[in-house]
Amino acid sequence: MEKLPAQMTVVAISKPGGPEVLKPETRSLPVPGPDEILVKVEAAGVNRPDVSQRSGSYPPPPGASDLPGLEIAGEVVAIGADAKKHKVGDKVMSLVAGGGYAQYCIAQDAQAMTVPPALSMQEAGALPETLMTVWHNVFERGGLKPGETLLVHGGSSGIGTMAIQLATALGSKVIVTVGSQDKAEACLKLGAIKAINYKTEDFVTESKAATSGAGVDVILDMVGGDYIDRNYEAAAVDGRIVQIAFLSGKPKATVNFTRLMIKRLTHTGSTLRPRSNADKAAMVAAIEDKVMPLLRQGRIKPLLDSSFPLEKAADAHRRMESSEHIGKIVLLA
Amino acid sequence: MEKLPAQMTVVAISKPGGPEVLKPETRSLPVPGPDEILVKVEAAGVNRPDVSQRSGSYPPPPGASDLPGLEIAGEVVAIGADAKKHKVGDKVMSLVAGGGYAQYCIAQDAQAMTVPPALSMQEAGALPETLMTVWHNVFERGGLKPGETLLVHGGSSGIGTMAIQLATALGSKVIVTVGSQDKAEACLKLGAIKAINYKTEDFVTESKAATSGAGVDVILDMVGGDYIDRNYEAAAVDGRIVQIAFLSGKPKATVNFTRLMIKRLTHTGSTLRPRSNADKAAMVAAIEDKVMPLLRQGRIKPLLDSSFPLEKAADAHRRMESSEHIGKIVLLA
Repeated sequence: MEKLPAQMTVVAISKPGGPEVLKPETRSLPVPGPDEILVKVEAAGVNRPDVSQRSGSYPPPPGASDLPGLEIAGEVVAIGADAKKHKVGDKVMSLVAGGGYAQYCIAQDAQAMTVPPALSMQEAGALPETLMTVWHNVFERGGLKPGETLLVHGGSSGIGTMAIQLATALGSKVIVTVGSQDKAEACLKLGAIKAINYKTEDFVTESKAATSGAGVDVILDMVGGDYIDRNYEAAAVDGRIVQIAFLSGKPKATVNFTRLMIKRLTHTGSTLRPRSNADKAAMVAAIEDKVMPLLRQGRIKPLLDSSFPLEKAADAHRRMESSEHIGKIVLLA
Repeated sequence: MEKLPAQMTVVAISKPGGPEVLKPETRSLPVPGPDEILVKVEAAGVNRPDVSQRSGSYPPPPGASDLPGLEIAGEVVAIGADAKKHKVGDKVMSLVAGGGYAQYCIAQDAQAMTVPPALSMQEAGALPETLMTVWHNVFERGGLKPGETLLVHGGSSGIGTMAIQLATALGSKVIVTVGSQDKAEACLKLGAIKAINYKTEDFVTESKAATSGAGVDVILDMVGGDYIDRNYEAAAVDGRIVQIAFLSGKPKATVNFTRLMIKRLTHTGSTLRPRSNADKAAMVAAIEDKVMPLLRQGRIKPLLDSSFPLEKAADAHRRMESSEHIGKIVLLA
């Protein structure tokens, strides 16, 4: 085994601000704790919370790295005393508590998953955050069942494109909202039965039309604002709405709750990062059971928009903030 | 068996309006369908939806009796061809689709329950609507578990007093909001650990104080309006809020949904009346399994506020609309 270097290149947030505050730095390698593994990063996914953290509105939780980066793929180069699931030399992908924008990163042994041969390392680095977010919110929290219809707002985002593939593979029909014809086509190609252009069409009318008037069974919403009242309108009886972000910038909304009561809707939501390690490990175990077979067969893989060298993380953020991307943006270390 | 009369006295809604529009009338006895039973009513509970129906804002569902009255207790005097659960002479209590304000009323055989000896017929007639509402919303929908804390708005209502007893008997702690000292005392006597006077105290502050800052696990809300945002504030992480009415008259509210997402709250709701007969029968079966033992032991019984002769239904409605009542109001046929 090659000897580990003492130092590594990372990309740090030099101060809160725009993409330009992301600066390469040299730091010491982190040392894994008893239940942790050290991964030599090959690819690190870029996610919306990284942008919020960079701009200063989403501080890392206590104990987490101050570096951005919530998911990685790479080779295990060191393991903690109690790490039993993975060994040095394994190729793994994992959600991480931060620190993904670096040549080396700590992961929890229990949260790392073996990279199946059907995935490239670049794809693997773009998978954990969106897969766990979709799995937990759409299936565990929203309880989407085969035969039911899922409406995904932001269908061409990393989360949206994963939701289309996973829900379709597990037997549901997926409707998405998108902001352009290009994005509509990308979603339809991944298996969506309908792509609604929110700039020219009303998603309530269109999703009711696509479900013979019944409405949709589960809604994955990352928009908020006036979408919330309209989600209640678009939902079927016994429908579930899962809130995972407020990209409208409007978490506050005026809503008529009569529909929630009369249609017996369930509105819930979650954020992944503050969940306990035990909760995250449980999600990973469920994914290894239910989703890994689909990953091994190559039936699900992250849709990649673009990749940037680690040092060019600022450009990756500019791309994400342009909202022109379709699918995931990845940093290559 | 005594011969059934051809005619009966009922109380009908002569036209939409105040309590005075409730008028005694003479009608033919209804005839049970194959899965139905005919009950000679001894007691009929008065519920908020009866008041809404009387004032014209809550029309009966298609196929239901035009007469008010959603719960009864009495003796079975005739059964349909396929009714197997009950027989003539049985003393039963049942949710009904309407028509409870009458000397005779149709019930679904599967939705009727045998009256346990620990209950008077007056208590039995005041039980089904509140028991099924509390059971379904607090336990089936809200998932209240032993050791968890339940906050009930309107603690001294029929539903509130039943929620206190049932949740306490099944191992939870109950906090209520009430509007007077008398009502507070009644709730504490039934087992509530804390009664918050909403006229002088803030329920968010008080319920957090009563749970060491953690917040409450389940909230049963029949108020709506600005309570909704405050419910999100009062709820614990992973809390569930169940909406069963909007007594504030304000189903529309401005809410900050950040708490719903960050605390992983679940906001849901339901109304009992439009549920299918199969759904209602399933609730009854669950209640016979989980709650009937407590009823037989006399550990749970409806708190009775007052009773009125059937013909004085208008006075019963005046009492309910005064909001001075504590517990259930019953008509005696």
